[in-house]
Amino acid sequence: MDNFVFQNPTKIIFGRGVEADVGDEAAKYAKKILLHYGGGSIKNSGLYRRITASLTKSGIEYMELSGVKPNPRLSLVREGIGLCRKNGLGFILAVGGGSVIDSAKAIGIGVPYEGDVWDFYCGKADPKETLPVGTVLTIPAAGSEMSCGSVITKEEGLLKRPCNSTMLYPKFSFLNPETAFTLPKYQVGCGIADIMAHLMERYFTNTKHVELIDRLIEACLKTVIQNASKIMDKKDDYDAWAEVMWSGTVAHNDLLSTGREGDWASHNMEHELSAIYDIAHGAGLSIVFPAWMQYVYKHDVSRFAQFAVRVFNVEHTFFDPEEAAREGIRRLKAFFSLLGLPVSLKDAGIGGERLSEMADKATEGGAASQGFFVKLNRQDVYNIFVSAQ
Amino acid sequence: MDNFVFQNPTKIIFGRGVEADVGDEAAKYAKKILLHYGGGSIKNSGLYRRITASLTKSGIEYMELSGVKPNPRLSLVREGIGLCRKNGLGFILAVGGGSVIDSAKAIGIGVPYEGDVWDFYCGKADPKETLPVGTVLTIPAAGSEMSCGSVITKEEGLLKRPCNSTMLYPKFSFLNPETAFTLPKYQVGCGIADIMAHLMERYFTNTKHVELIDRLIEACLKTVIQNASKIMDKKDDYDAWAEVMWSGTVAHNDLLSTGREGDWASHNMEHELSAIYDIAHGAGLSIVFPAWMQYVYKHDVSRFAQFAVRVFNVEHTFFDPEEAAREGIRRLKAFFSLLGLPVSLKDAGIGGERLSEMADKATEGGAASQGFFVKLNRQDVYNIFVSAQ
Repeated sequence: MDNFVFQNPTKIIFGRGVEADVGDEAAKYAKKILLHYGGGSIKNSGLYRRITASLTKSGIEYMELSGVKPNPRLSLVREGIGLCRKNGLGFILAVGGGSVIDSAKAIGIGVPYEGDVWDFYCGKADPKETLPVGTVLTIPAAGSEMSCGSVITKEEGLLKRPCNSTMLYPKFSFLNPETAFTLPKYQVGCGIADIMAHLMERYFTNTKHVELIDRLIEACLKTVIQNASKIMDKKDDYDAWAEVMWSGTVAHNDLLSTGREGDWASHNMEHELSAIYDIAHGAGLSIVFPAWMQYVYKHDVSRFAQFAVRVFNVEHTFFDPEEAAREGIRRLKAFFSLLGLPVSLKDAGIGGERLSEMADKATEGGAASQGFFVKLNRQDVYNIFVSAQ
Repeated sequence: MDNFVFQNPTKIIFGRGVEADVGDEAAKYAKKILLHYGGGSIKNSGLYRRITASLTKSGIEYMELSGVKPNPRLSLVREGIGLCRKNGLGFILAVGGGSVIDSAKAIGIGVPYEGDVWDFYCGKADPKETLPVGTVLTIPAAGSEMSCGSVITKEEGLLKRPCNSTMLYPKFSFLNPETAFTLPKYQVGCGIADIMAHLMERYFTNTKHVELIDRLIEACLKTVIQNASKIMDKKDDYDAWAEVMWSGTVAHNDLLSTGREGDWASHNMEHELSAIYDIAHGAGLSIVFPAWMQYVYKHDVSRFAQFAVRVFNVEHTFFDPEEAAREGIRRLKAFFSLLGLPVSLKDAGIGGERLSEMADKATEGGAASQGFFVKLNRQDVYNIFVSAQ
């Protein structure tokens, strides 16, 4: 186990109807706030009405900035920064999934910063302060509601880049599993894949003696797998959603990173895919992750066999551990298919024309590598994209 | 799953040699502090020297209050409160195990309070503020290093009572598994039993649909069981201690309480035992917990069977689940014995003379009940003590 520091101050308020208290919680930070969200879905579901009623009841004045899209755009972030500055808004309430929350976080660190907010995403500067951000989560997936990360897409060059900083922990997040009932099935599947990818990026590590966190990750994966199937059968199964929603948060709040190095190559390769083709992050992951696994599993067959046996109940093949390892990858692919997700580029209608370009972008033209479990050079990244066809 | 609120702000600094930075961390809170510890063990191990060197290097002036004993006493807490007030100390650094940390927490909430600090432990008042407290953990067991609880014993009447409050989260805790190398074997066993009890108190619940936390608790239990045996073989096994130490913290930081009711009858019954006989808390738990399980398992055979199968790898007896449930209890008892712990009152040299008195104290003479999984009246508590003989 590696030495580590762990601290996560985000307050989670979880359960049926909890969003009725969002006004009281937000009022601890400011009386004039930005309400940030995507499109009409929160209006159709009644969530918008419940939240604005709570804000008004707590004496909070709010300005709205809607229109956040999946793979949230830098231009809208800049608009939000301008709005907050011009109107003296002191808090940002994000209502939505990971894209809305990431966009709100970007606005938060952009407001007190003199330079351009993209500096934080291209590695030119680290955020030193932020406007406080709170969230009402509607899509269990990204884990941004209790994470210190944010991912933004810059339209020029279609660059999708992450920023990580302790400044990015939300002050609070409201998690009501009922808000997920109205999600389209495809989006449910994408969210499940994203949650599982967060767990697997942490699982595949070279750090030795990481038994506790291995087992905690396996516990989350088994819970998600079991309950995802229930949701596919019955989309308003509260109990199943509660398991998935809380798992999605725990998956990415960095408890499960303690004492170990993660990999993250699949996430970064996927970012190139969704930046160019604008497919859902989860759908990109269900294509890239199994391809990555197939490419690297021989690097540590024991770890892949443990994954197969403990997570997917594969019978261990003691005299041929590689077979158990491969069976784990097959089961993961089958599970993604069951969720209605693409498991190849072809499934997603993506051809081979830009694979070389994506491999270049992921590795700065070959100057950088991806991943820690196995360091991938430009050729490796290209090979994985090719194998995912 | 029940609705819940979860927030734990404690900063964990974990790994080899981390205590070298304790001065810098403490200096964020005050320049004049109280250094609180037990006896000579931290001097013999060299930890005292390393910590005081770090404090001095960071320009911190410290006064010392040592002499904390297992089942920490109210009189010493009062002495600490006096010391802090008289000398204007602004921070308390606890170096030790759960007793030292609990004592430091009590001093912390006592200093700014006008009344008697015991008010917080007998339910007369709730703490509203505290002097900040930091810890350097030396015994993985109590989980107090990241919990919101403290347990103090009042000498008059031998009353051992808990206080729980968000005020009681330490600001930071340093966890270096190396500090546990010098623990006597018996104390190691007691610590393991305490950690497992914290997990099992949470596990045995009537709340339905708590799959994620069930699995996370099982993950912690399996990790502790596997690594405890390694430590029994080799007391300076860093990797095994790292697993146990981090498990002990995660066991009690309230992530594993989210969305469910715990039981806690065994803990409270044990408090009566150790208050009168002054045995180690862990040794009391290894006696009381299996006796409690045997007394209540028929209340939810499925849950006890799940525990047996998932934690102790008992083969499930599908046509007679009670048998699997009982086998789980047997394996737990066998494991405690393997650790060198008593599993009956007789093992601990305790006779039956005061069982009735303990049952009275645990239930206020029959006016109160104990536990949530099964509500135990005075007669139940007495029966369990009798069955533990």
